[in-house]
Amino acid sequence: MPRKPVPVNIAEKLAGFSELWSQKTVAVLNDYEVKLAKLHGEFVWHSHEDTDELFLVISGRLTIQLRDGDVVLDPGELFVVPRGVEHCPLADEETAILLFEPTGTMNTGDAGGPMTKAAELVSS
Amino acid sequence: MPRKPVPVNIAEKLAGFSELWSQKTVAVLNDYEVKLAKLHGEFVWHSHEDTDELFLVISGRLTIQLRDGDVVLDPGELFVVPRGVEHCPLADEETAILLFEPTGTMNTGDAGGPMTKAAELVSS
Repeated sequence: MPRKPVPVNIAEKLAGFSELWSQKTVAVLNDYEVKLAKLHGEFVWHSHEDTDELFLVISGRLTIQLRDGDVVLDPGELFVVPRGVEHCPLADEETAILLFEPTGTMNTGDAGGPMTKAAELVSS
Repeated sequence: MPRKPVPVNIAEKLAGFSELWSQKTVAVLNDYEVKLAKLHGEFVWHSHEDTDELFLVISGRLTIQLRDGDVVLDPGELFVVPRGVEHCPLADEETAILLFEPTGTMNTGDAGGPMTKAAELVSS
């Protein structure tokens, strides 16, 4: 018997974890995932050859470094990094973001390395 | 020569239109769209046979009526209506939402009728 449907409260989900650079899947839409993450510091330069990637800032401030210049996102702002475009997220303060991308998209894209980590499904 | 990339500011985009029940496409991710809409009152019962549909409330309050009961979304809350599930959005006050779904998904799904309207691309 299906559970009673409940909404996903973004603030509550964010309060449920403190790890940085660890994507938490909070909803699934077809073969796409809505993920939350907390960032602080600089990530790694990478690109995703097969998919665009959406960043929406919930709190803090995210700089998406691109080879052509930076895009700075404040809360309530979103940006889509096109497939194949190298980017490197940077957060000078702790920043919470919502990501939207196909299921299985790895955080470090083509770069790999020690920060590579699959998204984790968080329970509702 | 490509334009300098700029973020999408959700509040600014919402300030740019006042129409109700009219989806505005503000970003594209692969073959999916991020859309904004303002709602007030009750929509029509419908379903989407081919896709799930994500609702994220920005301001106001959205009730997604389902045949099994209602889901009430406050700002910062999201819900995915699974494909094939009949639903009817209801907003007792003016409510702004973000939608995420495949490009070309019609607002009234299988129901059609006078409220059917394709999403409009808004300029950045």
